[in-house]
Amino acid sequence: MAVAEFTPTYSETRSLSSQFSSLTKTRLSYNRLNLLRPLQKPHNARVFCSVAPNQVQAPVAPQQIDNPKSKHECFGVFCVTYDLKAEEQTKSWKKLINIAVSGAAGMISNHLLFKLASGEVFGPDQPIALKLLGSERSFEALEGVAMELEDSLYPLLREVSIGIDPYDVFQDVEWALLIGAKPRGPGMERAGLLDINGQIFAEQGKALNAVASRNAKVIVVGNPCNTNALICLKNAPNIPAKNFHALTRLDENRAKCQLALKAGVFYDKVSNVTIWGNHSTTQVPDFLNAKIGGLPAKDVIKDNHWLENEFTEKVQKRGGALIKKWGRSSAASTAVSIVDAIRSLVTPTPKGDWFSSGVYTSGNPYGIAEDIVFSMPCRSDGNGDYELVKDVIIDDYLRERIKKTEAELLAEKRCVAHLTGEGNAFCDLPEDTMLPGEQ
Amino acid sequence: MAVAEFTPTYSETRSLSSQFSSLTKTRLSYNRLNLLRPLQKPHNARVFCSVAPNQVQAPVAPQQIDNPKSKHECFGVFCVTYDLKAEEQTKSWKKLINIAVSGAAGMISNHLLFKLASGEVFGPDQPIALKLLGSERSFEALEGVAMELEDSLYPLLREVSIGIDPYDVFQDVEWALLIGAKPRGPGMERAGLLDINGQIFAEQGKALNAVASRNAKVIVVGNPCNTNALICLKNAPNIPAKNFHALTRLDENRAKCQLALKAGVFYDKVSNVTIWGNHSTTQVPDFLNAKIGGLPAKDVIKDNHWLENEFTEKVQKRGGALIKKWGRSSAASTAVSIVDAIRSLVTPTPKGDWFSSGVYTSGNPYGIAEDIVFSMPCRSDGNGDYELVKDVIIDDYLRERIKKTEAELLAEKRCVAHLTGEGNAFCDLPEDTMLPGEQ
Repeated sequence: MAVAEFTPTYSETRSLSSQFSSLTKTRLSYNRLNLLRPLQKPHNARVFCSVAPNQVQAPVAPQQIDNPKSKHECFGVFCVTYDLKAEEQTKSWKKLINIAVSGAAGMISNHLLFKLASGEVFGPDQPIALKLLGSERSFEALEGVAMELEDSLYPLLREVSIGIDPYDVFQDVEWALLIGAKPRGPGMERAGLLDINGQIFAEQGKALNAVASRNAKVIVVGNPCNTNALICLKNAPNIPAKNFHALTRLDENRAKCQLALKAGVFYDKVSNVTIWGNHSTTQVPDFLNAKIGGLPAKDVIKDNHWLENEFTEKVQKRGGALIKKWGRSSAASTAVSIVDAIRSLVTPTPKGDWFSSGVYTSGNPYGIAEDIVFSMPCRSDGNGDYELVKDVIIDDYLRERIKKTEAELLAEKRCVAHLTGEGNAFCDLPEDTMLPGEQ
Repeated sequence: MAVAEFTPTYSETRSLSSQFSSLTKTRLSYNRLNLLRPLQKPHNARVFCSVAPNQVQAPVAPQQIDNPKSKHECFGVFCVTYDLKAEEQTKSWKKLINIAVSGAAGMISNHLLFKLASGEVFGPDQPIALKLLGSERSFEALEGVAMELEDSLYPLLREVSIGIDPYDVFQDVEWALLIGAKPRGPGMERAGLLDINGQIFAEQGKALNAVASRNAKVIVVGNPCNTNALICLKNAPNIPAKNFHALTRLDENRAKCQLALKAGVFYDKVSNVTIWGNHSTTQVPDFLNAKIGGLPAKDVIKDNHWLENEFTEKVQKRGGALIKKWGRSSAASTAVSIVDAIRSLVTPTPKGDWFSSGVYTSGNPYGIAEDIVFSMPCRSDGNGDYELVKDVIIDDYLRERIKKTEAELLAEKRCVAHLTGEGNAFCDLPEDTMLPGEQ
């Protein structure tokens, strides 16, 4: 029964036919019992009516569809009613999942949204709802994005809504992909950037805490992503801290590519690459544990000077080199790496391999400081969760670098104490560690 | 044996190890026998060495990979050797196909290339080679695109080469996706645009004729796409004219979306939508044969005034509306429609349905003038070919409009007679019929 797929909390029915009124009432009653959600402020949310006749002989009030939508509602053709269970092609599909994307009018999202809609990420039997978060300034662009999603006719993309209030957009989301962040203005220090973006992520954490699924998975892409993720999770105590990720997958992918190039092999031969620490220039691409064709990368490449002195720089300078060539930042491959990050959580990790993700340090086996978001090697059995990999080698070279990126993350944490509920901020970031080509 | 997957014609071996020298010689001898190709000019082509040991213990001369490439060669990690047949995960894969994309540094390609590489288009067991055609001016951007493709680690993307000479880039391609075209300059008439782009497509047709696979499929996206496709096929007499397509799939997708919006149904209920004629404002989105939930669209929508007077305009003004909202042209949904167009040729058309494509009129059952490229309803059994649909209704309303778009295409054809080998051009295009939002 498709009703069970949704748990709308407040109603402003999008039902296009009066025949659903009794159903709507029933659902409202049901939702009044749903007291677990600590709603922090009243707001109008939409109700999807996924139970509808497919009697196209009786087309429903089309004039409603042409009405302009208020700023937190379904968009265009995605407002129509449907019933997946009633159709031969869709009745075996999984339950619809809600995916929020912030910065939805930006270039990374412009790649990512279509990948999500195509089925490439969650599979060919996983219908999805996309909930696009933008800003007042970008609202028209959000509409443009939604129009292009309409014109793409993706069967799995069942619902699209656009909005500028995270308390609306994050309603019931199972995934929140937080891409939007303020770029660094001219002359802005990293501390300033941390503060301005930290405030955004504190607000979004609060909104997730209030309205998202209790087991929502959150991937933070907007920079500085590790500390933004920390702020976000600290403001969402009702969602497990383990569910928050800072994206270091693009760094991992770039590291794999550079190792493949150096070894003269195709990139599918490279595995077990960890990015340790912060998504910044203190990050540590780990060649010690990396494998090429199943063998230690060091034994294959046999060029320690390159590994210790050039490899990391090659990974880190990639974004800047790309901007120089292409004239724009690497939106496409960033979107691919977000897809990879999600797929790594929803499909079992290949035997013996792992993936990198910036995750909350709580009982980690590497001796890394607790209570920060640190990129580490993870494995998943495909249920959305992960565990840390235990059998990695950490030698003196690696440990020294890990300590440096750890120190930076601890400093960043002190810098945003006012946003994590830990008192007054004290900001002593010594240098600019923003990766080249990133904002 | 993987060697059979490639038919290199000239050699500039990309072999990274001397152990392949005897193999290279064997292949060269073989290729001297390959006299079918009417090579029009000598040029250096690359030879892929797809037979390689996977003995990563012996990494092959990495310094060669760092060398700058000349302008028609493999890129970076895609220059390395591999052997799909030797690997457990890849040995059941199909034979690699070569796909050329022109305008490869542009925004449509920036979406399309990653879709091709992901497996979304040709399936999860179809390895591909992408051959990117750009211009001297865009060469650095092409490198940037190739770098992002490297960083995406797509297992199916086995080869990427970049170049600015279609005689190099189109070598052995099974698909040519011709997106690149000159935008209309200030004050340029449609006749001027036809001429300037016609020359590009005449040249590309000649190049395809000289070096592409004898059964290459060609999809022309660059505007004015119908007449560009006609010019292209006229210059490629050794490739079946039936293999050339002008993209009208975005128009079809938009038409489906507008019918769904009007009927208040989800877009997956709309089928059998034909775009007739030219990809211009004379195009005819066909609501007479269209179906909604299996019923005639007219019977469902019951608003002839809307269908006859507003529907077409809504479809055609979509691109312009989108630019206004989003600030950029609709690259993402155009790329999606190119994916749809290809998939419609490589997967069987669902029973009773069809798709639109601008194809060469040669024995068409609708009474449309022969020897032009006209969008019509097609079906495919999934082998890359198609047949025209016979059981469509054409009433007076539809016929009148079809005649108008036909007249326009005949006029465009007269305009480019100097490019199709049919004498002197005579250009009497009465009005500007460029679709809003397109260049």
